[in-house]
Amino acid sequence: MAKLSDEALTQTLKNLPEWKRQGDAISRTFSFKNYYETMAFVNAVAWLAHKADHHPDMEVGYNRCVVRYSTHDAGGVTTKDVEAAKAADALK
Amino acid sequence: MAKLSDEALTQTLKNLPEWKRQGDAISRTFSFKNYYETMAFVNAVAWLAHKADHHPDMEVGYNRCVVRYSTHDAGGVTTKDVEAAKAADALK
Amino acid sequence: MAKLSDEALTQTLKNLPEWKRQGDAISRTFSFKNYYETMAFVNAVAWLAHKADHHPDMEVGYNRCVVRYSTHDAGGVTTKDVEAAKAADALK
Amino acid sequence: MAKLSDEALTQTLKNLPEWKRQGDAISRTFSFKNYYETMAFVNAVAWLAHKADHHPDMEVGYNRCVVRYSTHDAGGVTTKDVEAAKAADALK
Repeated sequence: MAKLSDEALTQTLKNLPEWKRQGDAISRTFSFKNYYETMAFVNAVAWLAHKADHHPDMEVGYNRCVVRYSTHDAGGVTTKDVEAAKAADALK
Repeated sequence: MAKLSDEALTQTLKNLPEWKRQGDAISRTFSFKNYYETMAFVNAVAWLAHKADHHPDMEVGYNRCVVRYSTHDAGGVTTKDVEAAKAADALK
Repeated sequence: MAKLSDEALTQTLKNLPEWKRQGDAISRTFSFKNYYETMAFVNAVAWLAHKADHHPDMEVGYNRCVVRYSTHDAGGVTTKDVEAAKAADALK
Repeated sequence: MAKLSDEALTQTLKNLPEWKRQGDAISRTFSFKNYYETMAFVNAVAWLAHKADHHPDMEVGYNRCVVRYSTHDAGGVTTKDVEAAKAADALK
């Protein structure tokens, strides 16, 4: 799977307004009311990751979680990351 | 929210072939390869429960999980349970 | 690992006042304030299970979780179950 | 709760060889065999956090998790963080 060109990625992110480019990855910060809710969401994202065999890095804080997708083999963002981002959006 | 009549429930379950009636509830047994995968799914179902504020009972075993929805206030199965069942199906 | 005799188990359970015999297993019901807290505990018990490679059955409800240990190979309760019960107690 | 002095913290970390100072926090990187195991541990740490009402930031990767404790009110590392670090160590 080839990484998306800069142009293709810019175009794609127009439809993912909550996600932004961050180096070779795309990331979104999700907000929650407390650590319980944050962890519950982290686990839901992890389930998607297991299912798709595509695993985000996550930064977990008290009431927020940054989810970051990148396709390491491709050295950038692929359609696999975009699909994963959409699936994570659908959880919230 | 009123509970579904026997007839309505029977009809509804035709579209949820994995779910069966169990007293005042509907339940489905999900199968997994090991405890890790089972727990990951249990957490994903829990996320849906938090979001919908509608919480299933679950029986967790090594490689299976029984998910059971019922609307206690209505003393039976309501459309809320049917929606939750569909959402759980969509996770797998 | 051989299963504990009835006598040995009765003796052992004197030191585990929250646990009771349930057929070939020992079980304890843990209580929580809501589904978030219940699930958080369920996950902590699961971590112990992964670590010890000894996995309880659990019944998860809104504000309680029944944890049940048994050693299937031995057809009853062994010291492995007793150790697991102590470790679960230490979490709460 | 007052933050530990530089000297006290340096002394304390001698007994927590896996933890290192990182700005106003202490952190440890835990390693795992895959995402399932990583997430299971993350959940166990979260349980401790709920119980102690003291919540680490965590960075979750495929087979590692960075756990970071700091006491924001004190603007640094307190004995509360040290206790939390010891409890996390005990999980692994």
